[in-house]
Amino acid sequence: MRVSEIGEFGLIEVLSKALGVPYPPLKGASPRPGLIVDLGDDALVTERLDEALILTTDTMVAGVHFLPGKTPWQDVGWKALASNVSDVAAMGGQPRLALVTLVLPQDALVEDMKALYAGLRDCATEYGILIVGGDIVRGPTFAVTVSLTGRASLGPSGEIAVLTRHDALPGDLVAVTGTLGDAAAGLRLLAEGRHRAAPGLVRRHTRPRPRVDAGVGAVQAGVRCGMDVSDGLVQDLGHIARASRVGLRIESARIPLSVDLRREFPDEALAFALGGGEDYELLLIGPAPAMEVLRTSVADITLIGEAFASDSPGVSVLDASGNEIALSLAGWDHFLGTVREEDHD
Amino acid sequence: MRVSEIGEFGLIEVLSKALGVPYPPLKGASPRPGLIVDLGDDALVTERLDEALILTTDTMVAGVHFLPGKTPWQDVGWKALASNVSDVAAMGGQPRLALVTLVLPQDALVEDMKALYAGLRDCATEYGILIVGGDIVRGPTFAVTVSLTGRASLGPSGEIAVLTRHDALPGDLVAVTGTLGDAAAGLRLLAEGRHRAAPGLVRRHTRPRPRVDAGVGAVQAGVRCGMDVSDGLVQDLGHIARASRVGLRIESARIPLSVDLRREFPDEALAFALGGGEDYELLLIGPAPAMEVLRTSVADITLIGEAFASDSPGVSVLDASGNEIALSLAGWDHFLGTVREEDHD
Repeated sequence: MRVSEIGEFGLIEVLSKALGVPYPPLKGASPRPGLIVDLGDDALVTERLDEALILTTDTMVAGVHFLPGKTPWQDVGWKALASNVSDVAAMGGQPRLALVTLVLPQDALVEDMKALYAGLRDCATEYGILIVGGDIVRGPTFAVTVSLTGRASLGPSGEIAVLTRHDALPGDLVAVTGTLGDAAAGLRLLAEGRHRAAPGLVRRHTRPRPRVDAGVGAVQAGVRCGMDVSDGLVQDLGHIARASRVGLRIESARIPLSVDLRREFPDEALAFALGGGEDYELLLIGPAPAMEVLRTSVADITLIGEAFASDSPGVSVLDASGNEIALSLAGWDHFLGTVREEDHD
Repeated sequence: MRVSEIGEFGLIEVLSKALGVPYPPLKGASPRPGLIVDLGDDALVTERLDEALILTTDTMVAGVHFLPGKTPWQDVGWKALASNVSDVAAMGGQPRLALVTLVLPQDALVEDMKALYAGLRDCATEYGILIVGGDIVRGPTFAVTVSLTGRASLGPSGEIAVLTRHDALPGDLVAVTGTLGDAAAGLRLLAEGRHRAAPGLVRRHTRPRPRVDAGVGAVQAGVRCGMDVSDGLVQDLGHIARASRVGLRIESARIPLSVDLRREFPDEALAFALGGGEDYELLLIGPAPAMEVLRTSVADITLIGEAFASDSPGVSVLDASGNEIALSLAGWDHFLGTVREEDHD
């Protein structure tokens, strides 16, 4: 069935049902826990909060961020929410409430949108998020925008404790969670029709798992600088170097690579890890004692380098012999349409 | 200059400048008042709040919600934010923080986006809103999504006081703010190239002014049911009738029509007022004593009808002789593509 057959309000009803929420809300119906007014009114209203609010938003467009017909709609739904969860994790916070906006061509299939919502719901359930409304409009191409709120963590004396990009200091250690390059390798396998070669790599691309645990663990351990690895390690390190006005030096031999990645792409594993995006791991920068504390609470932390005082903030990657690797693969810009050197500041 | 010439990060820099916010944020730079982490990091973080949060989002797509080349970009920006402000007003709250997401074709002009942001900034300034981030992605057609947070009002004993759609009771009075039908008439004038005939009507369409004042006034007066008139009076009354399980009866002769509307469209004024959308006035339903209090704080309130007990919730409009007017013009559904009777429940 096509969306044009049931209309906007018909579709809202179907999608609300997919979330297990009655629409329209009826007199006497209870809103979900934590809410005063649930979805279906002009806007959502929460109970009274006492917390620092985190806000972020992220969009996926068909044909740009995924290929309709190639990517299952359920994975599109998961990823649309997961990419936002990763931004909240990158601030050291906990995700809470999501708004979902769909731009839909008139011939969009209701079944596809139900699958999209199943993926959104899976991710919401996994991370304890409530989907609380949104907007549905007509447009030439499918796009989904998720806005997500979160709650910032508090430090030992009740102060707001977050991870920012501008808090790296000379002498700090640079760490990453998990392994890098897997998502980009998974995308390559999908593009080559070889998704059965290493389902684990493909899953890193289709069902990324943002590191809320590591973000919260980091701020609790006293780390105050970090971000998620979404554009590629080198590009993301560059953001931190410029915002913090430090140099960042990492050793390629220490970058954590998965067994699958090294087996499937022995020659390209490092390039995937340095330039591939969407791993949704966290990059964490902090003093050695805080890093030691962090390693006791988050198992898969790897130290890969250090920050140093520098007049020209930037990133260098050293090979096993201590020589600098030339970085031509520095990230992706959707508008320039090419991988590019970091030259915007 | 085209967006493809400066890239995503270049554009973010230009648009941040249009907001008067430095990008990327530098070590030591102060975030704006109320914020701990300003735009340019993975997500925004506010200071600690003690309030009930309102959340809403709304999207405008080129060619669907406005005609590029016909609507000035500054008006698109104003309206993209104003439609969200109206949703917060419809809950009786105050708007606070906005995220702005742009979907842009590669040949989009940087100048157009600067004009869009000038309109967004005008509306933000008018309503005391901070624009705190967003996302910019490539896509085949321009679309702008705004997500807006607000703060709910508190009642006399500190309880959260909101306007919902499901709180109308039999015997309540139905009121609207301002005048209705002007925005739809303004759109007609624009379509006919007659925008000089009544600039006031056109301005109601291009620069709608959401009624935050009236929403806050209503909850303070003890009114607890309401919404904004965005799809058309009859369709919006229908939402309230169904959510509250009451009948709503209004008298056409009491519907407030502007002098301009009656002069320019003497035969169609009522049809514009009943079916035309985007007036962004408020529809308020409450007991007579609360309505009396409200009229002392909000000048342009007009009583137009009443709620009554009914087994089949719905809306009826009576003409001057007390006869029911047949409602064929009941609102707009983007996917069904026609004005339609309200038959979704």
